[in-house]
Amino acid sequence: MASESGKLWGGRFVGTVDPIMEKFNSSITYDRHLWEADVQGSKAYSRGLEKAGLLTKAGLDQILHGLDKVAEEWARGTFKLNPNDEDIHTANERRLKELIGETAGKLHTGRSRNDQVVTDLRLWMRQNCSMLSALLCELIRTMVDRAEAERDVLFPGYTHLQRAQPIRWSHWILSHAVALTRDSERLLEVRKRINVLPLGSGAIAGNPLGVDRELLRAELDFGAITLNSMDATSERDFVAEFLFWASLCMTHLSRMAEDLILYGTKEFSFVQLSDAYSTGSSLMPQKKNPDSLELIRSKAGRVFGRCAGLLMTLKGLPSTYNKDLQEDKEAVFEVSDTMSAVLQVATGVISTLQIHRENMGRALSPDMLATDLAYYLVRKGMPFRQAHEASGKAVFMVEQYEALGGTARSSVDWQIGQLRALLRAQQTESPPHASPK
Amino acid sequence: MASESGKLWGGRFVGTVDPIMEKFNSSITYDRHLWEADVQGSKAYSRGLEKAGLLTKAGLDQILHGLDKVAEEWARGTFKLNPNDEDIHTANERRLKELIGETAGKLHTGRSRNDQVVTDLRLWMRQNCSMLSALLCELIRTMVDRAEAERDVLFPGYTHLQRAQPIRWSHWILSHAVALTRDSERLLEVRKRINVLPLGSGAIAGNPLGVDRELLRAELDFGAITLNSMDATSERDFVAEFLFWASLCMTHLSRMAEDLILYGTKEFSFVQLSDAYSTGSSLMPQKKNPDSLELIRSKAGRVFGRCAGLLMTLKGLPSTYNKDLQEDKEAVFEVSDTMSAVLQVATGVISTLQIHRENMGRALSPDMLATDLAYYLVRKGMPFRQAHEASGKAVFMVEQYEALGGTARSSVDWQIGQLRALLRAQQTESPPHASPK
Amino acid sequence: MASESGKLWGGRFVGTVDPIMEKFNSSITYDRHLWEADVQGSKAYSRGLEKAGLLTKAGLDQILHGLDKVAEEWARGTFKLNPNDEDIHTANERRLKELIGETAGKLHTGRSRNDQVVTDLRLWMRQNCSMLSALLCELIRTMVDRAEAERDVLFPGYTHLQRAQPIRWSHWILSHAVALTRDSERLLEVRKRINVLPLGSGAIAGNPLGVDRELLRAELDFGAITLNSMDATSERDFVAEFLFWASLCMTHLSRMAEDLILYGTKEFSFVQLSDAYSTGSSLMPQKKNPDSLELIRSKAGRVFGRCAGLLMTLKGLPSTYNKDLQEDKEAVFEVSDTMSAVLQVATGVISTLQIHRENMGRALSPDMLATDLAYYLVRKGMPFRQAHEASGKAVFMVEQYEALGGTARSSVDWQIGQLRALLRAQQTESPPHASPK
Amino acid sequence: MASESGKLWGGRFVGTVDPIMEKFNSSITYDRHLWEADVQGSKAYSRGLEKAGLLTKAGLDQILHGLDKVAEEWARGTFKLNPNDEDIHTANERRLKELIGETAGKLHTGRSRNDQVVTDLRLWMRQNCSMLSALLCELIRTMVDRAEAERDVLFPGYTHLQRAQPIRWSHWILSHAVALTRDSERLLEVRKRINVLPLGSGAIAGNPLGVDRELLRAELDFGAITLNSMDATSERDFVAEFLFWASLCMTHLSRMAEDLILYGTKEFSFVQLSDAYSTGSSLMPQKKNPDSLELIRSKAGRVFGRCAGLLMTLKGLPSTYNKDLQEDKEAVFEVSDTMSAVLQVATGVISTLQIHRENMGRALSPDMLATDLAYYLVRKGMPFRQAHEASGKAVFMVEQYEALGGTARSSVDWQIGQLRALLRAQQTESPPHASPK
Repeated sequence: MASESGKLWGGRFVGTVDPIMEKFNSSITYDRHLWEADVQGSKAYSRGLEKAGLLTKAGLDQILHGLDKVAEEWARGTFKLNPNDEDIHTANERRLKELIGETAGKLHTGRSRNDQVVTDLRLWMRQNCSMLSALLCELIRTMVDRAEAERDVLFPGYTHLQRAQPIRWSHWILSHAVALTRDSERLLEVRKRINVLPLGSGAIAGNPLGVDRELLRAELDFGAITLNSMDATSERDFVAEFLFWASLCMTHLSRMAEDLILYGTKEFSFVQLSDAYSTGSSLMPQKKNPDSLELIRSKAGRVFGRCAGLLMTLKGLPSTYNKDLQEDKEAVFEVSDTMSAVLQVATGVISTLQIHRENMGRALSPDMLATDLAYYLVRKGMPFRQAHEASGKAVFMVEQYEALGGTARSSVDWQIGQLRALLRAQQTESPPHASPK
Repeated sequence: MASESGKLWGGRFVGTVDPIMEKFNSSITYDRHLWEADVQGSKAYSRGLEKAGLLTKAGLDQILHGLDKVAEEWARGTFKLNPNDEDIHTANERRLKELIGETAGKLHTGRSRNDQVVTDLRLWMRQNCSMLSALLCELIRTMVDRAEAERDVLFPGYTHLQRAQPIRWSHWILSHAVALTRDSERLLEVRKRINVLPLGSGAIAGNPLGVDRELLRAELDFGAITLNSMDATSERDFVAEFLFWASLCMTHLSRMAEDLILYGTKEFSFVQLSDAYSTGSSLMPQKKNPDSLELIRSKAGRVFGRCAGLLMTLKGLPSTYNKDLQEDKEAVFEVSDTMSAVLQVATGVISTLQIHRENMGRALSPDMLATDLAYYLVRKGMPFRQAHEASGKAVFMVEQYEALGGTARSSVDWQIGQLRALLRAQQTESPPHASPK
Repeated sequence: MASESGKLWGGRFVGTVDPIMEKFNSSITYDRHLWEADVQGSKAYSRGLEKAGLLTKAGLDQILHGLDKVAEEWARGTFKLNPNDEDIHTANERRLKELIGETAGKLHTGRSRNDQVVTDLRLWMRQNCSMLSALLCELIRTMVDRAEAERDVLFPGYTHLQRAQPIRWSHWILSHAVALTRDSERLLEVRKRINVLPLGSGAIAGNPLGVDRELLRAELDFGAITLNSMDATSERDFVAEFLFWASLCMTHLSRMAEDLILYGTKEFSFVQLSDAYSTGSSLMPQKKNPDSLELIRSKAGRVFGRCAGLLMTLKGLPSTYNKDLQEDKEAVFEVSDTMSAVLQVATGVISTLQIHRENMGRALSPDMLATDLAYYLVRKGMPFRQAHEASGKAVFMVEQYEALGGTARSSVDWQIGQLRALLRAQQTESPPHASPK
Repeated sequence: MASESGKLWGGRFVGTVDPIMEKFNSSITYDRHLWEADVQGSKAYSRGLEKAGLLTKAGLDQILHGLDKVAEEWARGTFKLNPNDEDIHTANERRLKELIGETAGKLHTGRSRNDQVVTDLRLWMRQNCSMLSALLCELIRTMVDRAEAERDVLFPGYTHLQRAQPIRWSHWILSHAVALTRDSERLLEVRKRINVLPLGSGAIAGNPLGVDRELLRAELDFGAITLNSMDATSERDFVAEFLFWASLCMTHLSRMAEDLILYGTKEFSFVQLSDAYSTGSSLMPQKKNPDSLELIRSKAGRVFGRCAGLLMTLKGLPSTYNKDLQEDKEAVFEVSDTMSAVLQVATGVISTLQIHRENMGRALSPDMLATDLAYYLVRKGMPFRQAHEASGKAVFMVEQYEALGGTARSSVDWQIGQLRALLRAQQTESPPHASPK
């Protein structure tokens, strides 16, 4: 249909439907991940309708039963998508109607896509964050265990990538573990803000049918309800926060990966990756490429790109729901998958890494680190023999760094204790989420 | 395998293989898009080997024939992937070997994954850029056609979103078309830098077997060969440039989309989207949501996110190939798909958009724009009647803007002529790429 | 100095000093902002040295007195920089030595630039966050006050920028205020992580002189001490978090600005900016450009750019301090300044904005919103008179949205109560920070 | 002024002027950089007015003379800013009026801030790009010279940071030089698009006074004129392109910096930075920190941040000039300064870098690289003596990589020739820009 005369400008023929537009608009290829959350949300909402007197007990039972069937089909992989199922919500509704007939339509009463979509996404992310939280703690725990067991290994600490001072290998491990505990803490905060219920906000103005949002909250085990319906249906802070959480966590992992790639070079020779996490080269048999670490490092860029993309999409949007917000889901799904893989691979790398104690020690020997120091003392006027002796002892000075946080054994033990306490505390704060009814 | 004792730190069991690492490492789910490019590259390289005396004529024929079979299977959808096919190159090689036996191995001679991968990607992108170039020109052409036909429609021009001066509707269309011609020009430049052959660079040091790279270039119809093997195998400028090209083009389209979303509000009522590009609301029958435009606007964020992600991945990498570079392909494929859809949808939107001339005119009437002007003149001491008359005439002053680039009809005609000439010139510069042998 | 022969490659002459490098390396032009924090940190550290027996009481008094003099000179604007003062720390040390002689050198004992710099930055940011927190609460309070007073004004709510449903003007204000309360909450979290003391971490391995870090913490009123010296001196999570906090807050403000820019167009005519926040055009007297709002919207990009830049700088850095980290401070200072200005301007805009109640009401009248609805009902078979009447009443249906969070008056009152309680609670959580001794 | 009653909501007092808003709005602190461009543009425009009969010859002379005085004051540092000079254009106009009286006002005729600002910026950037172009070519030339002189030095080439194959040191230098030639080529393309004249576009609709834009173009020595006045006054493609150009160039320099930081570690010991580009540590005398390289690497983040920020600012803006565009200038100035410093420092680093040939050679000796190869051959069944001999020879196989682009001496010579030709060609394409009259 076109300007007045119906004439089309330009060459693309378009009838009432443009297949490219349809595909462009459709989200079912990715939002199908939300099937379970969508069923959960609908079950809770139908209970809310019944309590509000908008649905009979029989109607409710019919809907609950139908939704269970829908869920079962998804779980079994037998759910069949129609070409017209443009998103997961349409698909589930269509199927429910096929299963139980017109009663299915009641689910629309006072609920809009806007509050439904964002409720589903929050349900999905809440569960996903719990999973990521557990994987992250597992990684930290592995690092702490290793730090404890290898507490007596010394090697050079670097600043500006120049040898600076002897430190404990455990001190290095813990420096990265401590960074990850901040990520763990932040993830709990993000999850707290995810765990707020928008259902009952309607399209924009709220719910006109007296549905009890506190009841919905309790049904779905959310921590609180959203305060304002316009904000609730269109804010995506929790998505942006999650993507930034992932970006910062990846920055930590990419820095650790960078260290290990360096320590694994022929020149450093401090560590060696397990075969499971590196790749040989048929052309160059002497090589063992640290593919796992390079991939971890590279994902920092990808994940941050998603964060940048979403913020740019949000910036300057007018109030309330705009279709632009549909960009949120792919970002969340992709980043969640990436984080899950990265955390597990990092745990695998750390738990199977081999260290070369002799090389680490040799890097601290008078012939290496201390030589420079010795020559310096000589230039300052100290006789060579004395200078050599003095610098040779420098290696064993590590124990003096016993102020809290330092590399002395006592401090490393203290750090291990602190981290173990922290892991326990966070575990209490984030119990595995009870699956909503 | 683990630290000395074989003990594993932490809970994940890892044997010689970690399935999560395998999946993390594998790229076949997306790099299968390169199947055709991979076959083309291999055919050219085998010809190079034959010319260099490293392959017999019979061997060459066998390989070419085998590769044609492989291509046929992909084209027909009958190619079967093995679980061990971690990328498209492994898959094609494995299949070739199954088809023609040991001769297949000859293809390895002096070629490495590093130069092979980047050659394939360049082949794919070269073709893709030609396609995007054509879609972009089609969009511009549609806009120019429309501008020409609706040259006599006036409406308010805005700055700071405040009504500023009457302009031609065509002037508005052309302002966006002109922006897109810069994208078109830039795409040709990017394509020129894509169209450079890295094959024959080996893993890092070059090709040790005297393969004639000029011959490879001619076989694959590239414009030039890369100068340095270390750079050739690890630079991804052409990817970064492409992603930035897309980001800037999307910025233009998002600005146009923003205008049209505004012009389509009840308050402006200048334009109306065709049903094919908007969505009704069952709940609110008076609404017609500009989904197509909102999606276009949102994709600006997504596309830029990919660009940001790649640059962050590249930043600070050491020389030559690192596995981090594997991030390039998904970004390219996703952005290419997005651009293709966006350009076609934008063309559809422009070609079917309905304009409301009366509303446009009314927005320029004394009761609207000129009223303010009239009151201003009154405040300055002009009698009201005279002020009203003067301001009413303001609308018809458009013709005075006849300096080149202005909104006068003569200038709009000139612009149309310029754009048509430009489209013709760019078409000549970018002939549909001859499919390599 | 050059390769072997002392020969220089290329044309730039370089002796032992390259003036461009010196300037490139210097940070005094911006890190002078830290003068007060630097003095505070040094005073606390000298007290720590005295407690550890590394400084006599007399030496301590000398240093404290000297530092007070330094601070006084900065406060009065009489501090004179030397050309060799490459950063604020060097400048303060140099001046201290001029004032009190060799005792000044004691301050070096066991402290390194690495822990000093990051302590100073945390001190500065802690105070700055308190200030921003107050400005943000002031903005929210202004919005809540206004929402309360104008509770009875109705106007159209939009989704997809299409008129959707009548809502309260206060509901719109509160939708943005609620978003800002999340920023306020997040800022407290960021501040909590800023408020951790790294002093006593040395360059990398910790403090070797038994300085009591708990004492330092108490002196400087920090909430906790850092756990690991390597991490403490090189992590910049708190900077990244702050920049992201600002980016997300700016996204909210840019969305509000976008709404107000639209509502202030001739076409919407719902609001009018005070002259203090808009600019007239001499050329076009009818215009009043919403410069303040456009600047707010634009800053979302700038602030996010700083966040993106820092993350890219951090990504893939090796462990511990690298000079790259020097990028942190300019980002923090610029973003802090921007946020301070933006929050105050936004408060000014909101507090002086004029609303056009009649236009808001007219946009809801049967001639506008409801007409479409009426025609729809007619098409569905309802007689026109009846349809017209029915649709005319639609406007007054706002009161039905009384589920919590909806636009009914009862719900808006509830929202106002919730926000006031939240502001009170956050104020308690963030008392104006006691200036460290 | 406030809602109806004049009442202010919230606590900030605001009269007709808000000083924070004034400062927020003002751009003179940075756009003063444009003083010369602003004078040039005004001189050209006044000539255009005279040709169009809108200014007498005497008036023209007066204006030209006055503008020369203004320029002289800026050049001598005697120009005095007024508190009301909110931008450079206002300042220059105000001063011109003081100098020559009312005739100064003629300069307004048909010119708006919108076309004036963007013309000034293009003039400034055009000159700046020429300067950066020269600095970049100087860096490339230095690298090529060095590559030529040290052609016989071999050292290990790395992939995945694992030793891969022996290569020439010159091959490494050239790999980075080749990357920079693409930046050089791209800069010429960006400059071509900068070099287009928008003057004569007015505020939005064009110039209503018959000013001859071709004459303006010739006066200011631009390559072309803009095609559409709406686009001309609000597009900032040339800024975005420039910022991206800088981002990609910085990515190259950050990769080179990363290599050199690694090669300068104790463990690699291939190179040593000149004292002018590194910093000693008083605490750790054995250290020499590569500050220059770390700063270069860090700037990649900062520069990209500016690019990201601008794109986010542009995204979704409505047509034509919006105040948001004011963000363009600070980004351009900062990035230009950074690029200028980085390119010069990089040239200094490369031209003064010392290489350790013996260490480079040792890294290729049988005890290092080839040992692994030898053991591999042994495992494959070759007697040890024979394997050792074979692998020892591997180092000298470099000459076989003589396909174009490889590391053989003949190919390195070819590369040097290619680069020299390219530098010559680009110099011809970008003559130092004739200063406009």
